[in-house]
Amino acid sequence: MAPLRPVVLLTDFGARDPFVGIMKGVLLARSPRTPVVDLCHEIDPQDVSGAALALRAAVPYYPAGCVFVVVVDPGVGSARRILWARSRTQQFLAPDNGVLSWLTEEHAVLERRCVRNRALFARTVSGTFHGRDVFAPVAAALSKGLKPARLGPALGDPVVLPWPGTRREAGGPRGVVLTFDRFGNAVTSLRSADVPAGARVAHRGRDLGPLRTHYAEVPPGRALAVAGSAGLVELSARGDDFRARFRAKTGDTVHVRNRR
Amino acid sequence: MAPLRPVVLLTDFGARDPFVGIMKGVLLARSPRTPVVDLCHEIDPQDVSGAALALRAAVPYYPAGCVFVVVVDPGVGSARRILWARSRTQQFLAPDNGVLSWLTEEHAVLERRCVRNRALFARTVSGTFHGRDVFAPVAAALSKGLKPARLGPALGDPVVLPWPGTRREAGGPRGVVLTFDRFGNAVTSLRSADVPAGARVAHRGRDLGPLRTHYAEVPPGRALAVAGSAGLVELSARGDDFRARFRAKTGDTVHVRNRR
Amino acid sequence: MAPLRPVVLLTDFGARDPFVGIMKGVLLARSPRTPVVDLCHEIDPQDVSGAALALRAAVPYYPAGCVFVVVVDPGVGSARRILWARSRTQQFLAPDNGVLSWLTEEHAVLERRCVRNRALFARTVSGTFHGRDVFAPVAAALSKGLKPARLGPALGDPVVLPWPGTRREAGGPRGVVLTFDRFGNAVTSLRSADVPAGARVAHRGRDLGPLRTHYAEVPPGRALAVAGSAGLVELSARGDDFRARFRAKTGDTVHVRNRR
Repeated sequence: MAPLRPVVLLTDFGARDPFVGIMKGVLLARSPRTPVVDLCHEIDPQDVSGAALALRAAVPYYPAGCVFVVVVDPGVGSARRILWARSRTQQFLAPDNGVLSWLTEEHAVLERRCVRNRALFARTVSGTFHGRDVFAPVAAALSKGLKPARLGPALGDPVVLPWPGTRREAGGPRGVVLTFDRFGNAVTSLRSADVPAGARVAHRGRDLGPLRTHYAEVPPGRALAVAGSAGLVELSARGDDFRARFRAKTGDTVHVRNRR
Repeated sequence: MAPLRPVVLLTDFGARDPFVGIMKGVLLARSPRTPVVDLCHEIDPQDVSGAALALRAAVPYYPAGCVFVVVVDPGVGSARRILWARSRTQQFLAPDNGVLSWLTEEHAVLERRCVRNRALFARTVSGTFHGRDVFAPVAAALSKGLKPARLGPALGDPVVLPWPGTRREAGGPRGVVLTFDRFGNAVTSLRSADVPAGARVAHRGRDLGPLRTHYAEVPPGRALAVAGSAGLVELSARGDDFRARFRAKTGDTVHVRNRR
Repeated sequence: MAPLRPVVLLTDFGARDPFVGIMKGVLLARSPRTPVVDLCHEIDPQDVSGAALALRAAVPYYPAGCVFVVVVDPGVGSARRILWARSRTQQFLAPDNGVLSWLTEEHAVLERRCVRNRALFARTVSGTFHGRDVFAPVAAALSKGLKPARLGPALGDPVVLPWPGTRREAGGPRGVVLTFDRFGNAVTSLRSADVPAGARVAHRGRDLGPLRTHYAEVPPGRALAVAGSAGLVELSARGDDFRARFRAKTGDTVHVRNRR
């Protein structure tokens, strides 16, 4: 018997409602031995780019052969399509809203299908909870080895989410603050690999010095730019909350000033 | 060897304290292979009706043979009884405070016992944490196949929670807002099946049109009444937060106006 | 094949970021069958003593043979050491910041090592996310039975966190409020076992009566001191939120007045 593929859940369902628990009930009913892993359920409501970032950060650390299920779905019940996709080693199930656009190169999508075979869904499909009636049943089937061709026809024109606000300027690359983590660190759209040695990083014009690799390179309380764990430049304050301290906001500009 | 019954946890313990993690330790100690599923832990503190609603919505989606453990227990350590109950396919363990009253017809309780056999509890039972010292040990035993007769005597007079504020009026049924989900949708006490075709739904006198099945039936931003995923009428605003936008509150009246 | 040791996670990563989900990916990749249990992830950011208290409360309820992984790590990426420790029945992996100082006597640490063998870590170790690159890989190895001697040399001078503000005074022991739980109960530094029969407990000079074992010993709404489930004196208001009602704060003094 082939081992069951783990199902990894990423939603904006939060913890106060039973939505995630209900999806787990469906998975348990359809495939009792499938390992189910919670990637994150506190994506901001309907924040597709927040989910895209979380997926980008997490996928490289999972073993080959998982089924990632993304239910961040502002268009539930509309004509939006449901997407199955495959990278070199993983499968994905998500609304076709661009949430898979930001996967890193090694995990980029290689094949897509439109999930349309209603025989795989719940007998009755509600108009407001496809996580329960579509995503969970199809994920259980994929975990058990369903052939993707059974899902529906190839999909050639997926919705794409452009990578936000990053451009090359004369002095060096320029990006924006994408989001903040729990500790108040700002995650930016600039790849750490794009910051040349010796270049300095500035937030809304305020110099934060060169790109560091450890918080401890600066004294306690000092602001810094650090090569974040997801490959993106982050803005921090050592032992402090950067967001609160500098009233930083999503969309704030971040400059890299190359050494002259 | 009979398979172990999954234990499904529903509590108001929240995430900031280690209470749920401690219950999982006890389950792991007493039955290492029992599958443990989190239904929800963010029921508002001591909100018995919130737990009753979550249970009502979730139970139909779990496979037969689960043990649902509800620890929303304002009366912990008082003389309140602990209840074991059985529906056609499931078992329940809960304080006798009415939390099982709202299960849908197909999952209604058929048998009840008073959990009283202290040999099944922790050696020392604290007066404030029965989740750890009573519910988890008994759930582990039930998962392993304990005969319910071992728990204690039949219980014939359970506490019952009346279904709130729904009545038939001349113009059509009238109900109330029961709760809100994370997205700001209002869940009402009106069953979608009780809204006749063509009838219109109103919130505090404000017409929301006929009952829809999909958010996308109205333009973005527009308020609507929709047949919610748990069989109850919900009030929403497409792509928006109904609760915040209309300052909706628990207990707000909701009318159905039948077509004349 | 020896059974895999469960890995029990205690972090301050919260739920809104994918950090915990990424650690689970690493564990799944390195040891697919290891049981992973969430003890708690909502320790206040960088609150080492909050984590120490949670661990103290939880460890006694887990079966022998677990690997507790604590990632509450204000010093990540600095020179702080990473600690492996062993009690009579459990293993621990944590930053060397004192988080293991408050384990109860029966679970006190008997042996310590400095985790230093980079062959056990991720190939690339980021400067900001050791949960992913150090703790999860080493935990997976310990789950599979790694010999602790492989981790690094013995560590004889661990950082110790003193138990806060408790002293014997003429009239009786005096302590402080350590933290609050979700329900607004205040957990104090006084051990219930240190309160003599007949002694009375006072919060900021206000008498709360003798130490109770059940909330129901006082009328609804009344404040009381109760023998909490973790062996510490707690301050509560029956069916109410003690913290909010009395504007209680961490560090508030709590007195025991012995019977004269």
